[in-house]
Amino acid sequence: MSVYTKVTAKELGEWLRNYAVGTLVECKGIAAGIENTNYFVTTTGGHFVLTIFERLPRDALAFYLGLMAHLARHGIPCPSPIADLQGTMLGTLKNKPAALVTRLPGAAEMAPQPVHCARVGTLLATMHLAGASYPGELENPRGPRWWRGAAPQVRPFLDAERARLLDEELRFQSLYRLQDLARGPIHADLFRDNVLFEGTSIGGVIDFYFAGVDAWLFDVAVCVNDWCVLADGAIDDVRAAALLTAYHEARPFTALERGAWPVMLRAAALRFWLSRLYDFHLPRPGELVHAHDPEHFRRILARRIAESDRCPWI
Amino acid sequence: MSVYTKVTAKELGEWLRNYAVGTLVECKGIAAGIENTNYFVTTTGGHFVLTIFERLPRDALAFYLGLMAHLARHGIPCPSPIADLQGTMLGTLKNKPAALVTRLPGAAEMAPQPVHCARVGTLLATMHLAGASYPGELENPRGPRWWRGAAPQVRPFLDAERARLLDEELRFQSLYRLQDLARGPIHADLFRDNVLFEGTSIGGVIDFYFAGVDAWLFDVAVCVNDWCVLADGAIDDVRAAALLTAYHEARPFTALERGAWPVMLRAAALRFWLSRLYDFHLPRPGELVHAHDPEHFRRILARRIAESDRCPWI
Repeated sequence: MSVYTKVTAKELGEWLRNYAVGTLVECKGIAAGIENTNYFVTTTGGHFVLTIFERLPRDALAFYLGLMAHLARHGIPCPSPIADLQGTMLGTLKNKPAALVTRLPGAAEMAPQPVHCARVGTLLATMHLAGASYPGELENPRGPRWWRGAAPQVRPFLDAERARLLDEELRFQSLYRLQDLARGPIHADLFRDNVLFEGTSIGGVIDFYFAGVDAWLFDVAVCVNDWCVLADGAIDDVRAAALLTAYHEARPFTALERGAWPVMLRAAALRFWLSRLYDFHLPRPGELVHAHDPEHFRRILARRIAESDRCPWI
Repeated sequence: MSVYTKVTAKELGEWLRNYAVGTLVECKGIAAGIENTNYFVTTTGGHFVLTIFERLPRDALAFYLGLMAHLARHGIPCPSPIADLQGTMLGTLKNKPAALVTRLPGAAEMAPQPVHCARVGTLLATMHLAGASYPGELENPRGPRWWRGAAPQVRPFLDAERARLLDEELRFQSLYRLQDLARGPIHADLFRDNVLFEGTSIGGVIDFYFAGVDAWLFDVAVCVNDWCVLADGAIDDVRAAALLTAYHEARPFTALERGAWPVMLRAAALRFWLSRLYDFHLPRPGELVHAHDPEHFRRILARRIAESDRCPWI
């Protein structure tokens, strides 16, 4: 990546005439993100991010943009899609779906302390509460249905030990039906690089393009597996307690969620091990450079299985 | 003003539980504004302004909050009303209508240069364009209908010369029917203290509580009468040209508007002379301290009448 689609200042200036954001001052490609082309766009009216969607279908995009608009309306510091003069949030640029969203302040905190984890816990819980009234429907695009399709495709690339781990975890997860857990729109990818901090305050939460409707607890597990891990994949109990306690204060966990927690931590690890295996062994053109090492989440999954009966809770 | 209604941290903390903005960190009364009670509110989720509405009717408030939400959705840097967990923007606090909106960065520029005036011109034009699709209806609350009601109430306080000026200007304005000018939601009070600057960039436009549907050109005239005046009330041609040129680039003026310009500059002066006379001579309890000197706009009105056939245009 990451700028698949080139846009000239002239083309962008023309396109922006259909928005009430003033005229183009500057446009810079962003070298991050795997799924889309992103530009920082400065106009006389403010600071924005332009995203040109390379592969996501328009119905999913409608869900994502609607969700961001809904959350922003409820005070969640997420990118707010800008409507054009016809009131439409999803536009077309270079014959591809495109959207202009507000640019948020801050930078990713790659060495989070307990205070950062607490902030993320509060943010995640309030995001879940605010999202509860969002009417959009989209199945988690990297949920169990996707696992079942991806596993046979990556399995031929695995050694015997890893193939066995994959098979057994898929079977283990299939024993659990978690439809009764509290559900709603989830971010589903709230890693350290998707939260912007200004000091210890959150400036924004970004990249909603893996969001979908699923168990809220899955979202919590995704967070803990990234924000609260040590180098060897073990959970840092202090950071996990900070995140879970802050979440619980804003949106109390239920007894059912307490029981499902070890299963969810494993499910969240499996999801990213699988997708990283997929991106690593079956890359799309131009993507290989950015593929993450799948082993990181293989280790986390193995850890969570080993820790199943003593995983941290509050 | 300005804090008519006192709210304790405990009351506010309780109230905020119905929003997805985290928990209360700090709350400070704001000593500005004549119509409402305002607080800066900081939560773990961000920076907001709480407004408790002292006198505005709920239907007007629905128009204002809807307009702000609409403009924010189109990229205008205005306060964005935060919906509560039920999706409602207009809440109730201390038995009064209340709203939580985003807090914008920057500070008022009280000695504007041409570059600031140009920014305001662009902002105003894009605000008009973005507002064109807003379906809400509210007559300009300080339009000709209000003038006709207010004039007889302030007239007894005027000396003969001022009474004659008022009578003659009201008769002059009544000769013009400006319903054919381009119309839409207007801010109607875009003075220097309602635009926040960060350097020469606009951080935000605030205080929409005099907005209504009226001729866009009236909004332009209100701006020029404040942003582009010299100490004696005369128009600074350089600043006026900067504001009008920038506006025209984003939303070209029509020939009809060119013709109506001198009348509009006088109407905008009359409107503020009248309201300041009203607030000065017929103050509400606790308001006298903040009443502006009506003479400033009397001088501006007299100037605009004298300059009618040579008022600045582009």
